[in-house]
Amino acid sequence: MRVADLTEQVLNHNDFIDKAIQLALENVRSGSGGPFGALVVKDGQIIASGANQVTSTFDPTAHAEVVAIRKACLAVSHFELTGCAIYSSCEPCPMCFGAIYWARPAHVFFAATASDASAAGFDDSFIKEQLFLPYAKQEMSIAQVSHRLALAPFEAWKTKVDKIAY
Amino acid sequence: MRVADLTEQVLNHNDFIDKAIQLALENVRSGSGGPFGALVVKDGQIIASGANQVTSTFDPTAHAEVVAIRKACLAVSHFELTGCAIYSSCEPCPMCFGAIYWARPAHVFFAATASDASAAGFDDSFIKEQLFLPYAKQEMSIAQVSHRLALAPFEAWKTKVDKIAY
Repeated sequence: MRVADLTEQVLNHNDFIDKAIQLALENVRSGSGGPFGALVVKDGQIIASGANQVTSTFDPTAHAEVVAIRKACLAVSHFELTGCAIYSSCEPCPMCFGAIYWARPAHVFFAATASDASAAGFDDSFIKEQLFLPYAKQEMSIAQVSHRLALAPFEAWKTKVDKIAY
Repeated sequence: MRVADLTEQVLNHNDFIDKAIQLALENVRSGSGGPFGALVVKDGQIIASGANQVTSTFDPTAHAEVVAIRKACLAVSHFELTGCAIYSSCEPCPMCFGAIYWARPAHVFFAATASDASAAGFDDSFIKEQLFLPYAKQEMSIAQVSHRLALAPFEAWKTKVDKIAY
């Protein structure tokens, strides 16, 4: 990498995290949802951005990272974000963390921490604590149900010839 | 609860998990996505169902549970699924687990386990293992970036008078 490229990248890096924070601030001002913004960068260009839309769209999964990932995937017409970087105003919650792992970007950068989010009233840390617990000790009622066909979908999947793996 | 109600509930319970599995099987047959199905039940009625649509919609977040949750929330015009039960053909992955916690249903039931999903080629267990590790030891590149405005969105949120908390 040439020095000029490196300098340009460092400048952009700060610009991108700043842009994610500005999206979060604008989202609070507009009342569209929580104080979170995110964007997806590919080859130095922003290909998608998102802000939290939970309350305005009745969608508990519409966190900034999820919104940005969904838009970015549509932009590249693929369900993975190979080689992309995700910039978020805040450390991803467990749901977004999972979404990011499934999207497989090259890098993730965030500004505020999950502790900062919890201090502002968001359950990120609580959910992560729950994930570490066995179901019997979790706050939510979650349980396995026996069914004779429980493995049938996987067996069908394994023998399907024309499947698209992901 | 009367005995008749209990019997009816037990029957429905099995019907619902069966229906989630049938959705998964049909999804493999149709080629719409992976071998997963889910539905949301409120007051004994199915208010939404979903199957994995990752590959057909270029959306890595379109797991069966997320698809069903998003539809159910639209059906009740709220970002929470208070009093609802979610039935899934498989144990929720960390992303779906997070989505479920944010949606706050009363109960979650699943048939196959995350280990079964991993054996069929799905990364659920891998992602959960990664979530338990510090970032420096994770396979994905993820890091905090210092920014003087990192907490500004939360400060704006805290002082906003007309916000809708979630």
